[in-house]
Amino acid sequence: MAGSVYDSTIYAKLFGDKEIGTLFTDSAEVRALVLVEGALAKAQAKCGVIPEISGAYIHRASLEIPIDGSGLAVGTGSSGVMIPALVAAFRKAMEAPEHSQYVHFGATSQDIMDTGLALRLRQTIAIYEARLVNLIKALGGLSGMHKATPMAARTWGQNATPTSFGAIFASWGWPLIGLLDDLQHLKNRLVSVSLSGAAGTLSAMADKGPQVRAELAAGLGLNDPLRSTHTDRTDHAGFAAWMARTGAALAKIGTDIHLMAQTGIDEISLGAAGSSSTMPQKQNPVTPALLQAIATHLNGLDHAMQSATVHAQQRDGAAWITEWMSLPQMCLGLGRSLAATTDMLAILTPNPLAMFNNLDDGLGLIYAEGLSFALANHMPRPQAQEAVKSLCTDARTRQRHLRTLTQETWPDLDLTACFDAHKTLGTAPQEAEDFVKATLNLRDR
Amino acid sequence: MAGSVYDSTIYAKLFGDKEIGTLFTDSAEVRALVLVEGALAKAQAKCGVIPEISGAYIHRASLEIPIDGSGLAVGTGSSGVMIPALVAAFRKAMEAPEHSQYVHFGATSQDIMDTGLALRLRQTIAIYEARLVNLIKALGGLSGMHKATPMAARTWGQNATPTSFGAIFASWGWPLIGLLDDLQHLKNRLVSVSLSGAAGTLSAMADKGPQVRAELAAGLGLNDPLRSTHTDRTDHAGFAAWMARTGAALAKIGTDIHLMAQTGIDEISLGAAGSSSTMPQKQNPVTPALLQAIATHLNGLDHAMQSATVHAQQRDGAAWITEWMSLPQMCLGLGRSLAATTDMLAILTPNPLAMFNNLDDGLGLIYAEGLSFALANHMPRPQAQEAVKSLCTDARTRQRHLRTLTQETWPDLDLTACFDAHKTLGTAPQEAEDFVKATLNLRDR
Amino acid sequence: MAGSVYDSTIYAKLFGDKEIGTLFTDSAEVRALVLVEGALAKAQAKCGVIPEISGAYIHRASLEIPIDGSGLAVGTGSSGVMIPALVAAFRKAMEAPEHSQYVHFGATSQDIMDTGLALRLRQTIAIYEARLVNLIKALGGLSGMHKATPMAARTWGQNATPTSFGAIFASWGWPLIGLLDDLQHLKNRLVSVSLSGAAGTLSAMADKGPQVRAELAAGLGLNDPLRSTHTDRTDHAGFAAWMARTGAALAKIGTDIHLMAQTGIDEISLGAAGSSSTMPQKQNPVTPALLQAIATHLNGLDHAMQSATVHAQQRDGAAWITEWMSLPQMCLGLGRSLAATTDMLAILTPNPLAMFNNLDDGLGLIYAEGLSFALANHMPRPQAQEAVKSLCTDARTRQRHLRTLTQETWPDLDLTACFDAHKTLGTAPQEAEDFVKATLNLRDR
Amino acid sequence: MAGSVYDSTIYAKLFGDKEIGTLFTDSAEVRALVLVEGALAKAQAKCGVIPEISGAYIHRASLEIPIDGSGLAVGTGSSGVMIPALVAAFRKAMEAPEHSQYVHFGATSQDIMDTGLALRLRQTIAIYEARLVNLIKALGGLSGMHKATPMAARTWGQNATPTSFGAIFASWGWPLIGLLDDLQHLKNRLVSVSLSGAAGTLSAMADKGPQVRAELAAGLGLNDPLRSTHTDRTDHAGFAAWMARTGAALAKIGTDIHLMAQTGIDEISLGAAGSSSTMPQKQNPVTPALLQAIATHLNGLDHAMQSATVHAQQRDGAAWITEWMSLPQMCLGLGRSLAATTDMLAILTPNPLAMFNNLDDGLGLIYAEGLSFALANHMPRPQAQEAVKSLCTDARTRQRHLRTLTQETWPDLDLTACFDAHKTLGTAPQEAEDFVKATLNLRDR
Repeated sequence: MAGSVYDSTIYAKLFGDKEIGTLFTDSAEVRALVLVEGALAKAQAKCGVIPEISGAYIHRASLEIPIDGSGLAVGTGSSGVMIPALVAAFRKAMEAPEHSQYVHFGATSQDIMDTGLALRLRQTIAIYEARLVNLIKALGGLSGMHKATPMAARTWGQNATPTSFGAIFASWGWPLIGLLDDLQHLKNRLVSVSLSGAAGTLSAMADKGPQVRAELAAGLGLNDPLRSTHTDRTDHAGFAAWMARTGAALAKIGTDIHLMAQTGIDEISLGAAGSSSTMPQKQNPVTPALLQAIATHLNGLDHAMQSATVHAQQRDGAAWITEWMSLPQMCLGLGRSLAATTDMLAILTPNPLAMFNNLDDGLGLIYAEGLSFALANHMPRPQAQEAVKSLCTDARTRQRHLRTLTQETWPDLDLTACFDAHKTLGTAPQEAEDFVKATLNLRDR
Repeated sequence: MAGSVYDSTIYAKLFGDKEIGTLFTDSAEVRALVLVEGALAKAQAKCGVIPEISGAYIHRASLEIPIDGSGLAVGTGSSGVMIPALVAAFRKAMEAPEHSQYVHFGATSQDIMDTGLALRLRQTIAIYEARLVNLIKALGGLSGMHKATPMAARTWGQNATPTSFGAIFASWGWPLIGLLDDLQHLKNRLVSVSLSGAAGTLSAMADKGPQVRAELAAGLGLNDPLRSTHTDRTDHAGFAAWMARTGAALAKIGTDIHLMAQTGIDEISLGAAGSSSTMPQKQNPVTPALLQAIATHLNGLDHAMQSATVHAQQRDGAAWITEWMSLPQMCLGLGRSLAATTDMLAILTPNPLAMFNNLDDGLGLIYAEGLSFALANHMPRPQAQEAVKSLCTDARTRQRHLRTLTQETWPDLDLTACFDAHKTLGTAPQEAEDFVKATLNLRDR
Repeated sequence: MAGSVYDSTIYAKLFGDKEIGTLFTDSAEVRALVLVEGALAKAQAKCGVIPEISGAYIHRASLEIPIDGSGLAVGTGSSGVMIPALVAAFRKAMEAPEHSQYVHFGATSQDIMDTGLALRLRQTIAIYEARLVNLIKALGGLSGMHKATPMAARTWGQNATPTSFGAIFASWGWPLIGLLDDLQHLKNRLVSVSLSGAAGTLSAMADKGPQVRAELAAGLGLNDPLRSTHTDRTDHAGFAAWMARTGAALAKIGTDIHLMAQTGIDEISLGAAGSSSTMPQKQNPVTPALLQAIATHLNGLDHAMQSATVHAQQRDGAAWITEWMSLPQMCLGLGRSLAATTDMLAILTPNPLAMFNNLDDGLGLIYAEGLSFALANHMPRPQAQEAVKSLCTDARTRQRHLRTLTQETWPDLDLTACFDAHKTLGTAPQEAEDFVKATLNLRDR
Repeated sequence: MAGSVYDSTIYAKLFGDKEIGTLFTDSAEVRALVLVEGALAKAQAKCGVIPEISGAYIHRASLEIPIDGSGLAVGTGSSGVMIPALVAAFRKAMEAPEHSQYVHFGATSQDIMDTGLALRLRQTIAIYEARLVNLIKALGGLSGMHKATPMAARTWGQNATPTSFGAIFASWGWPLIGLLDDLQHLKNRLVSVSLSGAAGTLSAMADKGPQVRAELAAGLGLNDPLRSTHTDRTDHAGFAAWMARTGAALAKIGTDIHLMAQTGIDEISLGAAGSSSTMPQKQNPVTPALLQAIATHLNGLDHAMQSATVHAQQRDGAAWITEWMSLPQMCLGLGRSLAATTDMLAILTPNPLAMFNNLDDGLGLIYAEGLSFALANHMPRPQAQEAVKSLCTDARTRQRHLRTLTQETWPDLDLTACFDAHKTLGTAPQEAEDFVKATLNLRDR
């Protein structure tokens, strides 16, 4: 089956993410859930909720006994949730009814599934952190290397003023530093156990519930929310929104590279990949398109997640199922985007000559703002701006260079600095340097 | 792997759709694409674009030679599209270079993939049509059966006036009749070949391009758009929107059933499924939740599809890839929803007694509007409405029945018709009958 | 107040739509609702539901008495719907209690509001139709004019093969012809009265309800749905989806023009608008950005509309209110996009010389596909494609023209047709001509 | 005009937010922008970029001179941005060309608009913080008051186990505490000046740019991002996502109250508002519907904001304009939701008796889980669960109370604690108390 590109063998190299892919498989899911049941039994034994020997037995079994996901299909189809079938299968496989009866003692399906998800999200987040640091450092390296390489800054698709390629890398990297910081903030609450029992009151564990939850958290290395969290999906929704936002920050890189790689602009090449089935010359910028597509997909799935934030009453099947349908693909997609961006930077070949040539565009209009400020030393600024605007029109109509036209109008004006790309970079080199410094401070993970 | 519930063995019975599932697998995709290449060669041979013998050879090979999807992964990863690798694999497997050189002659990847998709969408739509007819007829049967079964019509979650259960079925079914009609409208353009060559001009087929396209359409039983359609995604987006809308129409059924099945309302039961992992009494309404979850997911994916409607320039990788990520899951999800709704209707057990009891709620407030119109025969309507409003407040405060209070105030008023559920159904039975009639006119498929 | 750009005086020229703007004001809304109440009374009088003289009186009053929207604020805030306050204000203004008591007789708020909306949507749709026809014809004119003007077809942002500017106009126009066709399909159901009474059964009109509905429809020139439609939002959702799709079709035009207007591409200019606050040379392509922004906004609001398609039970306040918040802005936005696109085409100045120069890009790689097919007359096609691929690499590396390199390798090959833009347009001129023909068949409105 | 409910006088009491409403008007926008221009001049004078006397003059003028927004319409329509027209109008109104020439010196439109927005978002956020604290404390009060009021916990719409009404308030309040914490995190970066000049390099301010930015930040009481932020929309997108998430947390409250207020459940009443135009008995729960509608609308607009996160190149008109269309309405909507929720809590009348009666539902099935754990002291847990499951089926079929059936089967079992709502609340009272404690620690604002 391949309803999703993430599950397709054909698309394994285009969309596949080996590391994160292992976290979102049927068997990884079953594995995580059984581990939670084992850790729960251990915690309950410690708190005296179930016999110590049974706790130890279940815990060991949870580490050793494999459960086959396909055997859960019928039960899952009937209950709408896989846990009843899983608990039955686990109990049966243990072949020790005197102990297995204490499996899933006083917990509800959502406790186990949310906690199992937290385990996998913890790993996902660790991978994201490592990849983000890696990517930001790569951007830092390129930013430093090109800090004074002039190119055209473009606004509304039009040449604006000169900037440097290094400043562009910095503009790509800063949002990622912010997003890494946001991830630190949001993971604390996200990576928590859920243990609230049938309907949020842990009533089946007498007064030991909170203690069991604390032990379970300690046992799994997750946080203890200190309360029932069944209907509080704020953190899952926040993580989904963060993934969408991060996907967009990577799509911004893809978009800019796509535009720089256009035929006729040619400031960047991504090598010989992206061949066409019919056009021999084609080297399509595949990764930029991939980053944009994944970001749009993430945005759609994020929307489903946000729509499902409202969990009605004390547990809400419909909203919860929506999460199952959406979150794993989001995790896979963002993982792929992060890896693909870093890979793309490694093969990115800039063409500084094209950058330089595109900057001037034959008419020198990109220097108009600087010229207007130079002129403003000799006349009021509004008048200077009008004068330069009129020269620009002339330059376009007569296809003559702004510098020539300026010289003809004000022969005494010193224009050396005005029309020199290297002297009109403003803070661009500094922007690059500041970003490089910021990347050096990032802790490796 | 199971990034998606549609590809998970655990969830095979909850989300799986056997019929539509076979259309959206790696092998079904490869199969469809090879068929298109074969049909293209046959069409081109007929038009004299390639040698007749090669056309026949390729066409036969397309029916016989199996191509393994996993062998395309590396090529797909590098080109960003699977067709170059597929063409190479197909040519190689044919072991007849003199013929295989004419495979994919003058076509572009998108031609093949869009046409292959059209083949599968044609089948998907046929299944949808059959299921919609089936479902509408089931609703018709139930509507007729319960056309005069009184129950409370509820607005803003509050009892409004009496209606009949049959009218509710009609209200669920009418939108589906409209959506079936919409599907007839939209499928004409959707189920078309795409053949426009490298960039929309079919330049590699000299002046034979349009003729080849017509032959290809005829060969595959698809429509000929008579033009290049590479960047016109209106119809795909329209189909995605239709799927979202249809999913919502089914979620409306799920929502209403969920509300009728609530503890304390108990007007409907869905049998013994939906058991809990910890609560022995639980019979969760699983299908209603499933219908709501799928609708929310469809809505999110639809959004990705709509965001990808803008294909820039003459072909747009990023927008196109977004479609691959979104459309198959949408097809699977809606298929599952259609089937699940019909299955749910088959096991739905109404409780007319509960309906009747809920209607009155002990105070008879649901009859207030009718009473106010009865009173309006004796005083101006605004005054009647104010009087009844005041009686309703009394009824609530003193917990006495509206009928009693009315009788006390206007002892001479004949209230027989006013407080009889069966006599206050208005057009509800007629609404049910009209719907039944409409379902009888539906052509089986 | 200006929470919305559509209500801002500052943005009146950027986002404002005079014609559609008059339909979505407080006073236009009140006006429409009062008209519906008047038409309802007239219809009820005709059917004998209320006294004939009262029907006539109310109907005349509905045409003459102005109601001030701001006076409804308190009542609307308390009821959540404006109708109770409107009915009270209308009755009071009539100063004839013996007649005014029959205002809103047996109708519910949603009947009046949905019907009032239908009146305004009918006008909106008529404007859309006229603008679409107008715009399509403008595209037709330009398509014919430039049917053989060569330019680069671009796929994945890279030069692909030659096409003509006229074919581009055709590719922009065809989806709009399809969307106009879709609008004809969907408007039939959309532009209908709603009259179902308190909860869908018209119980307050005895057995006259359906007849009243038919008369009301006839009186207002709307369709009669022949049933209760309170919870069937399929058609509103379908219209919203259509607006989003049409907005996207216009954004595609904007996107392509934005890309053609880029500095360094310069194939199109939009005149001297779009000036910058600081850069004298700037002529930002404002309308393309506007079209893209409105499309994104439409897509977001469409999503809200789709999320609100599920109306629970027999009327659903939450879902209905979401429509009020979303639909008017969508109508305004699409109206503005349609007008702005036509205005933009009127000032669009193509630069055929730039198109021609960009096509070749100095290396002639755009001719590679054609060359490979020419070579395929002398060797197997795969071999030909490999040979040309290798020449393309050479051309890039050595910065020599593909034609020169080809000539050096195969001195006897006749390359006249291969490297001539005008001779490699394929079906592009035909695509343009076919589109022109289609536009001539469009009926003016 | 009223394209938006937020700009409608009819809807002023339903959707209007007086406090936040004053921040999002045409005049408030112009006011903020002029203040930024004034602060910029002052900062530039301090840094020696413009003459000190001009800086002082402009700054004073910015505080005193009113600019009429409607006068900017033509210029805004032509430039696509309001700043060029605003600068011209401001300069003209100053009537001192020798100083006014230094207005907007080296800044670009986006600098001024983003900074002006930051000023208004700072105020918006302060209002949100105050309202959140207020609302959380109100929830705390109610949670404490009802900490041991038993009611049915419901999962999948079915009675699950007993809980307390106080625990429900806690479950509504905890996510808001988390969201308040998130707001503290995100506002630091959001409430920042933007000053990057024409294209991110501040080139017109020579080497004084960063110093001017720091002074500007200090002057306006905003943060200095220490870099160019034109294309980094992460923080705006993050704030939009936060608003959507917070709106959803309030919609959850609305949803639960809507469900508790249903006829037949009747656990809550919201007083006499929500009257119908035709049904005298109606008291529609308006605010719950409003909260749900605003949340859906926020979610749609959030989606537009997320789609616009990718700002291409160095400034992107299309993406930026999308923000103008979406963000103000989001700010207004969430403000209204926060205020409406608090108002609703103030008039909410719980019905503990109905809660108690609904809990038992006549069959006592809600006690099944507890019973199964009690039985598990006498037999293995799976066997106990099966036994209780079978009793539950019996109870349903024979309509007899679970307690009676249990007693008949195991006459010796002590069932006192099992079937007592007050003794089966589990941690519910503790959940309430913990939440109350958390609210007491919240700092007033």
